Amino acid sequence: MTARTDTEQVELANTTFYEVMERSDFESLSGLWLDGDDDGVSCVHPGWPVLSGRGEVLRSYALIMANTEYIQFFLTDVEVSVSSDTALVTCTENILSGGPAEESGELGPLVGQLVVATNVFRRTSEGWKLWSHHGSPVLAETEEEPDDETPA
Amino acid sequence: MTARTDTEQVELANTTFYEVMERSDFESLSGLWLDGDDDGVSCVHPGWPVLSGRGEVLRSYALIMANTEYIQFFLTDVEVSVSSDTALVTCTENILSGGPAEESGELGPLVGQLVVATNVFRRTSEGWKLWSHHGSPVLAETEEEPDDETPA
Repeated sequence: MTARTDTEQVELANTTFYEVMERSDFESLSGLWLDGDDDGVSCVHPGWPVLSGRGEVLRSYALIMANTEYIQFFLTDVEVSVSSDTALVTCTENILSGGPAEESGELGPLVGQLVVATNVFRRTSEGWKLWSHHGSPVLAETEEEPDDETPA
Repeated sequence: MTARTDTEQVELANTTFYEVMERSDFESLSGLWLDGDDDGVSCVHPGWPVLSGRGEVLRSYALIMANTEYIQFFLTDVEVSVSSDTALVTCTENILSGGPAEESGELGPLVGQLVVATNVFRRTSEGWKLWSHHGSPVLAETEEEPDDETPA
């Protein structure tokens, strides 16, 4: 089953994006972002201002990888919308991460974090590539969540 | 000068999106979002989970408008990237807003808020329409900001 639908290809590209982060694989991550003279890529990490352009975006990931000893993403609510050569993905990133330990060399304390992301991909001759990533912390429950009666 | 470039048209659509919010003009806001059987629209308000589909997105705006007496957006750092029939806009929303007063009927206290947004538009026969809006609070200064030496 090699022939995949656009939606399946985009979902795979989205999953790969998080897997390379988990592996701290900067080379592969760089290859997932659009590359070109006028790529127009942008990235917002949770709580950060906008980063624009491939150079600035990739430097931020190098910095984050250098300061993250361990990170794991459990993706939920993945929704894909494809229109011609552009695809929009929204998902919830249930993150478990730990920074480097200060002294002992052991893993620092693990921290759980709830982030929602909007990822925009563009179709290229080398597959679907990231045009934009915007992640933001979920700070409040809304009244749209009927499954959870208890306040966070 | 009626013939505008794609970038100018998209920037105008983006500005209009914030102007109709300032006017609390729900009808016009509804007209700015993609409409169709398979629109795939999504929206993230600052600190909120993802809202998917036109119905859920528009209901959230009705709720926000009902609870906002006054809101003004000062947009800075507006960057537009157009690729074929899709456009990506990032901007900083410098927001001044006030909720309804509890008793006196006067304006509640004004609150300033710094939000960054990624807005995705699609070209339609009726102009550029919103496919996705993702706004998030700016919680921390990064080392990418050389103009500001003092911690926030």
